[in-house]
This record gives sequence, structure tokens and C-alpha cells, in this order.
Amino acid sequence: MTYCVGLLLNDGAVLLSDTRTNAGFDNIAIYRKMFIFEEPGERVITILTAGSLSVTQTTIARLRDAMNHPDADEDSSIMKAPTMLKAAEIIGNMLAKVRADIDDKLSAMRQGASASLIVAGQRKGGEMRMFLIYPEGNFIEATEDTPFLQIGEHKYGKPILDRVVNMDTTLADAQKAVLLSMDSTLRSNLSVGMPLDMAVIERDACRVTLRRRIEAGDEGFRAMSEGWSQALRDGFSQIKI
Amino acid sequence: MTYCVGLLLNDGAVLLSDTRTNAGFDNIAIYRKMFIFEEPGERVITILTAGSLSVTQTTIARLRDAMNHPDADEDSSIMKAPTMLKAAEIIGNMLAKVRADIDDKLSAMRQGASASLIVAGQRKGGEMRMFLIYPEGNFIEATEDTPFLQIGEHKYGKPILDRVVNMDTTLADAQKAVLLSMDSTLRSNLSVGMPLDMAVIERDACRVTLRRRIEAGDEGFRAMSEGWSQALRDGFSQIKI
Repeated sequence: MTYCVGLLLNDGAVLLSDTRTNAGFDNIAIYRKMFIFEEPGERVITILTAGSLSVTQTTIARLRDAMNHPDADEDSSIMKAPTMLKAAEIIGNMLAKVRADIDDKLSAMRQGASASLIVAGQRKGGEMRMFLIYPEGNFIEATEDTPFLQIGEHKYGKPILDRVVNMDTTLADAQKAVLLSMDSTLRSNLSVGMPLDMAVIERDACRVTLRRRIEAGDEGFRAMSEGWSQALRDGFSQIKI
Repeated sequence: MTYCVGLLLNDGAVLLSDTRTNAGFDNIAIYRKMFIFEEPGERVITILTAGSLSVTQTTIARLRDAMNHPDADEDSSIMKAPTMLKAAEIIGNMLAKVRADIDDKLSAMRQGASASLIVAGQRKGGEMRMFLIYPEGNFIEATEDTPFLQIGEHKYGKPILDRVVNMDTTLADAQKAVLLSMDSTLRSNLSVGMPLDMAVIERDACRVTLRRRIEAGDEGFRAMSEGWSQALRDGFSQIKI
């Protein structure tokens, strides 16, 4: 499995993904699940992926091919799309097509393949937007009422987001929130694993303003994780029933 | 859905269940999911249920019939079973049979029905034990390493249990832990709802030593829930990244 989360706030977007991929418990590998496409200052699009690796890799590879194709235009290349909505449509259509192709191949073995994506970004002069794209290619969008989107193993890390995140959350607090949400997921579910990839996109910067890979032994993450455990235990001991 | 959780500790067992049952979002009802069978001082068995209501109700009804049958013996009645292991086997076999019967009926409509149970109890002179019984009738048992069992919507409420519960947890702290675990689940998942049923079984008492229904407007639960939210927000604001 996977856990990816994206927050769309007044100050910008914060995205976090894990990197664990497994085909059975004895076949575990590290694969990047965050893909950044940018023309700094002009356009930035970040894609987070969850699901069958064959589907997500092929989808990303074909999107890249379409971008680099000599005939790339606003209907085929997400880097030429006039709006983020159009970019989400291109990505959704590609995901649906790749998924259907691979599903056809796998049906011979009575298996299926699926994937979902979070897409966030902004084009100069346009709005910053964030979408969750379903395996069928349709999508929903983050809004003021629901400023976060999750894919993969989303349940363990949802309570903390439900409690501390709203549109006014600062980008610093947002980074803390997604990391603590991930920390709860890492502790409770073996199929989600380090290292982590985090990206921050300040509103109207139209580029990734902070990009960080957090490795398994990261001292800051470990300290944060322990601090949070201690805060939970302290809070717990103070609660009266 | 449902959320039920049981803790098996050095001092005894603590059990909590919600009461929401739904067949679609427009058909929501309250049904008890905690069933207590006791001969105080001699034997106590508590069953928590998750899954299709038709399966769980029929299973409980048939277990009750078997108990009250004139020929009830140690192979058919959980109140005559010589050990908790034997009681778990009787319950598991009954669940598997009822589930298979109902599944047969539903297969005509290409539907299926399933359920799982948590069973906890003690017989005078025997050990206190707790089991999670799967739809197929097989089961696992709570141990020193894993002193809690969950059925239904278990993911939202697992991080808090992972962090604060071990065999040495007091019964008072254990009640707090299961209530906070439930609180996180209630906030993040609509299919789990108040009122709640809680039972505490002190070790070697062989009876339910505390039994409590917590209604939707319960002032103590609301205060605890708000106190916990505040503790989380305070803890969050103190964490550094």
C-alpha cells in the first residue's frame, strides 16, 4: 500500500508521500511516488500516486512522453494545458486508459489493477488547485470545507488532520500536520514505509518552494515522532473520565 | 459499519462498542452490539459483534437457544463450556454455520453476508481470555504482545491504542483509552455512532464489574472528547519540525 496526503491552504499546498511498494510481504521495494513537473515561475504540477506500480509508472511515463512529443499541445501536454482543470482531465484520461489496458491484460489471470492520484499545482495567472483522481479517471477537488485529500492507507492518519487542519493553517504547521499524520500511519501499518518525500508550493510562486526527502534515520523526524508520542501520552494522562 | 474494541490487561478486560447499524445512508438504526452472559461469580462471557445484522442477531439468538435448551451440555452451551477456549469454539462454529446459511440465501442475489466477533470472559478457576472470531469461525487470541483486539472500522482508533495500551495499563486508563479510540473513530467515520456500550470485567471477579451506556448527549464523554482535542492541539503546537 501507500499513504499520500495533500493540503490546499490559503498560503499554498503541502504534499507528502511514502515510498514503500510491495508485491507480497517478501517483496518490498522503495519507489518514488511523488512526481514534480515545473517550469519555475510559470507552472508547477505535482502528482502523488497510489496503487499498482505498473499502472502508476506507465501513466507517469506516458504523460512525460506526451509532454516531450513534438506535437505536444494544450490537449495532450499537462505543461501546455491552459488551466489546472484541463491538466487534471488529461491526467485522468491517461490514468483511465492505462488502467483499462493493464486490467485487460490481467483479466486473463482473474486479477485486476488499479491506481489513484493526487494532482496539485498552479499556472501563472491561474488558481492553485488540488484534485484526487479516481481509477476511472473522474476526480474531486479540495475545497475550503475539505482542504485535504488522501490516497492509499488514509484512515490511520485522518484523525489528526480532522482536528488541526483548516484553510488558515500556516505552511509550517501544515508540514507538521502531514508528517504527524504519516507518523501515525507508519506506526500502525507495515505497508507504508520510509523514506518520505515532501513538497511545499507557496501560492503564486508557481514552483516547488521546498522539496525534502526524509530518510529512515532522519534525526528531526525521529525527534518529532517521539515528541508527538510524548505529547499524546501527557495529554492522555491529563484527561479525566 | 461498526467499531468494537476489547483490551485484555493484567487487571481485567475492558470492552467498548458503538450501536450504529445502517443499510444504506438513509436507513440508520441503533442496535446493541454488546451481549453479556453471566452467572455472577461463576462465569462471565461478553460478545461484541460487527458485520451483517442478520448474521450477528441470528448467531446470538441461536447461542441463547442452545444455552436454554433442556439438553444443553458442555459441547453446546457457552455457559456450560469447561473453558473459554471451548466457549470460543462453540461461538465460532455457530457464527460459521449461520454465516454460511445466510450467504447461501443471498447468493441468489449475488450478495454476501459476513460478521466477526470479539469474545471475552472468564470461568471461576480458569484464565481470563479474549478472542477475535473471524467469519469462517476460526479465531485468534489477545496476548501479552498484542493486548487489544478490534473489529469493524478499526483503523482510525488504532494509533492511540498503539501508543498508550500495554498489559500494565490500569482499568481506569483502559476505559479512557477505548473511549478516546472510539472518539477518533466517531469523528472520522459516519458509519460509527452513539450511544456506546462499555463493560469492565475485573480479573477473577467472574462478573461484569462495571456496565455503562453512554448516550449521545453524555456530558462526561463530551468533556473528555473536547479535552482530548485540546490536548492534541496543544501538543501539536509544541512540536517542532
